[in-house]
Amino acid sequence: MITNATYGVDPWELVETSLDLDLLAQSESVFALSNGHIGLRGNLDEGEPHGLPGTYLNSLYEERPLPYAEAGFGYPQTGQTVINVTNGKIIRLLVNDEPFDVRYGTLQSHTRKLDLRAGTLTREVEWTSPAGHTVRIRSVRLVSLTQRAVAAFSYTVTPVDEPLRLVVLSEMVANEEVPARRGDPRAAAALASPLVGEEHYAADGGNPRAMLVHGTRNSKLRLAAGMAHQVTGPERMTMSAESFPDVARFTVAAEVAPGEELRLVKYVGYGWSSARSRPALIDQVVGALAAARLAGWDALIAEQRQYLSEFWEGADVEVDGDVEIQQAVRFSLFHILQAGARAEFRPIPSKGLTGTGYDGHTFWDTEAFVLPVLTYTKPSAVASALRWRYSVLPEAKAHAREYGLSGSAFPWRTIRGQECSGYWPAGTAAFHINAAIAHAAVKYVEATQDEDFELEIALPLLVETARLWRSLGQHDASGRFRIEGVTGPDEYSAVKDNNVYTNLMAQYNLACAAELAGKHPDAARELGVTTEDTASWRDAANDMYIPYDSRLGVHPQHEGFTDYARWNFAGTPGDRYPLLLHYPYFQLYRTQVVKQADLVLAMQLRGDAFTAEQKLRNFDYYEALTVRDSSLSACTQAVMAAEVGHLDLAYDYLAEAVLMDLQDREHNTRDGLHMASLAGAWTALVSGFGGMRSAGGRLEFAPRLPPGLVGLSFRMRYAERIIRVETRSGKARYTLLAGDPLPVTHHGKEVTLTSETVTLEIPPIEPLPEPVQPVGRVPQSRRNRD
Amino acid sequence: MITNATYGVDPWELVETSLDLDLLAQSESVFALSNGHIGLRGNLDEGEPHGLPGTYLNSLYEERPLPYAEAGFGYPQTGQTVINVTNGKIIRLLVNDEPFDVRYGTLQSHTRKLDLRAGTLTREVEWTSPAGHTVRIRSVRLVSLTQRAVAAFSYTVTPVDEPLRLVVLSEMVANEEVPARRGDPRAAAALASPLVGEEHYAADGGNPRAMLVHGTRNSKLRLAAGMAHQVTGPERMTMSAESFPDVARFTVAAEVAPGEELRLVKYVGYGWSSARSRPALIDQVVGALAAARLAGWDALIAEQRQYLSEFWEGADVEVDGDVEIQQAVRFSLFHILQAGARAEFRPIPSKGLTGTGYDGHTFWDTEAFVLPVLTYTKPSAVASALRWRYSVLPEAKAHAREYGLSGSAFPWRTIRGQECSGYWPAGTAAFHINAAIAHAAVKYVEATQDEDFELEIALPLLVETARLWRSLGQHDASGRFRIEGVTGPDEYSAVKDNNVYTNLMAQYNLACAAELAGKHPDAARELGVTTEDTASWRDAANDMYIPYDSRLGVHPQHEGFTDYARWNFAGTPGDRYPLLLHYPYFQLYRTQVVKQADLVLAMQLRGDAFTAEQKLRNFDYYEALTVRDSSLSACTQAVMAAEVGHLDLAYDYLAEAVLMDLQDREHNTRDGLHMASLAGAWTALVSGFGGMRSAGGRLEFAPRLPPGLVGLSFRMRYAERIIRVETRSGKARYTLLAGDPLPVTHHGKEVTLTSETVTLEIPPIEPLPEPVQPVGRVPQSRRNRD
Repeated sequence: MITNATYGVDPWELVETSLDLDLLAQSESVFALSNGHIGLRGNLDEGEPHGLPGTYLNSLYEERPLPYAEAGFGYPQTGQTVINVTNGKIIRLLVNDEPFDVRYGTLQSHTRKLDLRAGTLTREVEWTSPAGHTVRIRSVRLVSLTQRAVAAFSYTVTPVDEPLRLVVLSEMVANEEVPARRGDPRAAAALASPLVGEEHYAADGGNPRAMLVHGTRNSKLRLAAGMAHQVTGPERMTMSAESFPDVARFTVAAEVAPGEELRLVKYVGYGWSSARSRPALIDQVVGALAAARLAGWDALIAEQRQYLSEFWEGADVEVDGDVEIQQAVRFSLFHILQAGARAEFRPIPSKGLTGTGYDGHTFWDTEAFVLPVLTYTKPSAVASALRWRYSVLPEAKAHAREYGLSGSAFPWRTIRGQECSGYWPAGTAAFHINAAIAHAAVKYVEATQDEDFELEIALPLLVETARLWRSLGQHDASGRFRIEGVTGPDEYSAVKDNNVYTNLMAQYNLACAAELAGKHPDAARELGVTTEDTASWRDAANDMYIPYDSRLGVHPQHEGFTDYARWNFAGTPGDRYPLLLHYPYFQLYRTQVVKQADLVLAMQLRGDAFTAEQKLRNFDYYEALTVRDSSLSACTQAVMAAEVGHLDLAYDYLAEAVLMDLQDREHNTRDGLHMASLAGAWTALVSGFGGMRSAGGRLEFAPRLPPGLVGLSFRMRYAERIIRVETRSGKARYTLLAGDPLPVTHHGKEVTLTSETVTLEIPPIEPLPEPVQPVGRVPQSRRNRD
Repeated sequence: MITNATYGVDPWELVETSLDLDLLAQSESVFALSNGHIGLRGNLDEGEPHGLPGTYLNSLYEERPLPYAEAGFGYPQTGQTVINVTNGKIIRLLVNDEPFDVRYGTLQSHTRKLDLRAGTLTREVEWTSPAGHTVRIRSVRLVSLTQRAVAAFSYTVTPVDEPLRLVVLSEMVANEEVPARRGDPRAAAALASPLVGEEHYAADGGNPRAMLVHGTRNSKLRLAAGMAHQVTGPERMTMSAESFPDVARFTVAAEVAPGEELRLVKYVGYGWSSARSRPALIDQVVGALAAARLAGWDALIAEQRQYLSEFWEGADVEVDGDVEIQQAVRFSLFHILQAGARAEFRPIPSKGLTGTGYDGHTFWDTEAFVLPVLTYTKPSAVASALRWRYSVLPEAKAHAREYGLSGSAFPWRTIRGQECSGYWPAGTAAFHINAAIAHAAVKYVEATQDEDFELEIALPLLVETARLWRSLGQHDASGRFRIEGVTGPDEYSAVKDNNVYTNLMAQYNLACAAELAGKHPDAARELGVTTEDTASWRDAANDMYIPYDSRLGVHPQHEGFTDYARWNFAGTPGDRYPLLLHYPYFQLYRTQVVKQADLVLAMQLRGDAFTAEQKLRNFDYYEALTVRDSSLSACTQAVMAAEVGHLDLAYDYLAEAVLMDLQDREHNTRDGLHMASLAGAWTALVSGFGGMRSAGGRLEFAPRLPPGLVGLSFRMRYAERIIRVETRSGKARYTLLAGDPLPVTHHGKEVTLTSETVTLEIPPIEPLPEPVQPVGRVPQSRRNRD
């Protein structure tokens, strides 16, 4: 039984004070460093033991065949899988003649610390070797947010009691052995030896360095990894460097006196490309390393802290009254930033670059959960992520054409833009991803007024997705615009007619596309959009069919859903969750059981389409059916619970979302962090307890805290402002920290924000009867925690 | 471009007068011989050239893993595939020093003839070798209908002009190379070298014989194949026999004078088992060969003819005015008999034992299409096929349990009883197979009054399937009994709610089960059936929800179907059929397009549930949507077209069904014959133009011919009678050929059949407007043929 690691309660640091080898894989994910371009799992410096060794480069993937027991037209034949690339993290140590290994000798102390303001992972160890020699090791690592091709490591060893002969070996290793794939369909394919050596060299002397160049076997990408070193220590040190196709090694040896330091600073640079030549790629890495060495370790550290300081200035969330959640929400924002900061025209995978879960694929998670957070905290990352979507429009167009559809159909899961889903009912049929992309683009434009983006990126994305929706749906004999046979967010229903979430999001997509095309008639015309097109998008949006069950007074998740039998919750033991691993899709699809917020997410994103009374009735109805077998649920339930007035419950769901990975609640944090759930932590606080919505260029707030929280304060960026909202003691205090005055609403009442803090009363609400969840699926109570 | 073979117009024989190597695979299927136990494709005696070498033993299969790009709970992990077993058909010839091979030398004449009364395939060849030596060869083969483990071959060679040194080599060969699998999902998996040699021996002398024993690699079945020979020819002949693990060979050589004969009679026996020991299996084959030799060739031939004569006496159909259809319907009946005659507690695969199509699996085809023909022509084969279903109840129970269902869920496709479907939406979700099995059992009991079967087999089958339906459906808030998320016969819709065919068949199944359990209370009690159970089955049947679209006045194929967009037939080029090979399931499932009769089949099998007006409106509505991409459609459309009064159209569909394989209309006859379509030929004539139905123990007729036919006469067995119905010149003549007087109805009017022929007028009908089919899917017109 794996229990959970704990990381203390420091609001800005995660501190692990002892090493539990059973929890290594989990902590490797938690301690992962990334800038969105390069990702390093928190593996120990010496490489072993490990849970899952991991070094990832955004969009560096290998292909593998997708097999089918029965073939079908249009099934993707080739999958894309993120691979563990050349590992530049490894720094091994010999103490006299004994290798430093935490499994042997005595670990006097072992501390690891992830600093959310510094952007570094620090490790401090005191270790006595089996032969009785004691050393102190301090290592610090970072993946630079300012120099995107570079990671850097500082490794310092100090003999404690006696002079010791120390040898530090700095390595790069390609084609590491990785643990075999598990049966769980959510785990990634581990690919054996995906890299083919193309070139290698090493040099010592004044600039001890090495380079390994590899190509991927099937996807035909090329990768160069280089390292450079600076060593300080005793006068007399011997150094050597050597290289082989899959290994490069720099060795430094010295006699070190007690209290004296041997220190190695290691810079690792990566370059990869499908197009560039080997010399160009090597030059790119050599250049990156030269720039890093020019800056030096201290400057890299300082730049890193500065970058983060600017981020926190417009993004920090302060939670008063719950230290765990305070720490966790900053941890969440830190990882969201790491995933998106320097992705730059590359996708943000559902696990970021923290593990191989879901094969390293990008899903709708990015646009529906992650980008809405970055939109208000790091908007440039949103523009960059959506520019990547724009860049894979050709693949999306081809995908739509193959399905006989107009416009573009973005893939359900992908790395490079091609559909990689091996099960179409929960893959391609989930067309709602296209609306999520359009929605994210519109919200980004609302929040930034980025006009270049609007014209260059948002317009084509909206036009292409509107075309798709128009061809996906049809007017029936009653004049309703229907969308049949698609899969909504809830993966326990698939291939259904008129999924309310999908239809509402498609409606939004069609209406926004028509509006934007009307705003930019010339640009629209260049995209081939006629006034007949925009008229037909408006028609489809106006006529969109939204099923409603008037007998029950709720919206069915899809047409007919409320006529289905309820899942037999009482007869489902707790160990049969997640249901998809213990029951056939056949039974899940034909029953009222909900894996993850679907109709409830529609109420969050399209709140304008529901009355307040409908929201409450719908929320309570789906609460009784939702089992939260997905990490994409609790945060949405938190937001809507807060909106309808179930504040305690919202607090419970906030905790579930924000502690998902820190407490490994889904038992798969080892495969990587759940970016969407991490993002949902911010959303649960800001859109949930803060009531923040952005609609039609107007920012709305409706803050209201659960009894369990003393205070909540959050910062956000909007239209070149920085806003701070603090809620405490039944009052909300709004402050404009930067930028021009801005009109917003507070619980529906208009108010203009200026640098003067405005304090407003929060209207009281009546207590509501608590909704019920399925047996055994009640969220852990946060209100009554010890 | 492969054109079609023609087989002449003889009403009792298929004659091929020249050999077209491009059509070999097709003719191998057409000329296949089988008794349901052993199947031999019509390969040339000398083995080469071939389209697909094939020797099959019912239920002898190999296992193979079923791969999935994304795993899912309950997906079958192991498939079962029929394999080409030890080939005992091979008889090679050397003429002086040249091997006889139709690809070399000169083929002076080459005739093959399948005799439907004799049950033999005869080949007559005159061939001149490259060196100019001419021989005549006459071979006759049969798979014995009276000695089920035995096939026999007579091979006679005669030098034409000069004395020749002839060597005849009789072989058995295991692990023949077979052509690689094609991409078409309908084609079978070809498995390389599935047999592992266990024992072999050969002996010459007075009884030249040999034996090969093999095991299958994964499925762990054992197979023994033996051969024995009788040789007549010149005084001086040398003979030898030898064996190897995969080959046994008997060689006879002689100098033969012109006009003189060298003749080899070869008996081949097979035994196979999962349980029996090697000696027991060898004994079984040795015994079968001894019995065959005891009978001798002439007696085997006579027994074969006698067996068929008895069959035709109660099964023959005479068609006056269409010689092609006359020949084809007898060909169809002959193959249906071959598939089922001696299957004996083993399944009847969808291709019989004529090829590897669909992996040799058995589907609902058997119960829904094939058994209804055998019920009235060879009822013992029906009892035997359903006893096989009974024997795999344990696997069906386990399958239901895995899905959380009560009772038994028979597999969609299988050889040994386990589900082998690799795509559940068109596999396990097609639960209607269970109702087809129950329906076949009820109809068999009605037609035979076989009381032992009713108690031992029908009752448990009905009870188990009723339990399944009761747990598959549920009463909704309006009190309707609903069955959600299942797939009906039409595979262009899948996982839909309240499929009318399924619901009507389930209703019948539930009602019949309740009735039968009431009739046999003690036996039902032993099966654990309580009166509460039967009451709940009756309730479910009474409350069964049958959706109806009152706006259009038609039954939707499933709930919501008639709201869907119509398939864009006008935009679908003819070369894009079958649609499933050119369009994604996603689009097929969400559109009004029908692969094969579904609602129309419901009207055939549950005619009582529709008014005459509904039948006509429904028929015409679905006619415009049905593309007949399945071989299981035309025959049903023929029956219902005839019933509603579209007689010309019924004639067209009859032709399509009956000529499916003889004219290779689906371009896959090479993989084996379409048993269901062959069976449908009889059904189209007898239930279509004869209007035959059996309902509640009463036989009904409503004969009416299309203008294109002069007369139709058919024989059938019913309740130990043989009935002949002849229709001609607006009159029907009924004759009881055997058995006690029997009341039937003629166009609704009661009449008692006796040995005196009764002649009755056929009431006239008004001409109807012709329904339309999708563009390009109009059936070939039979009425206007040349």
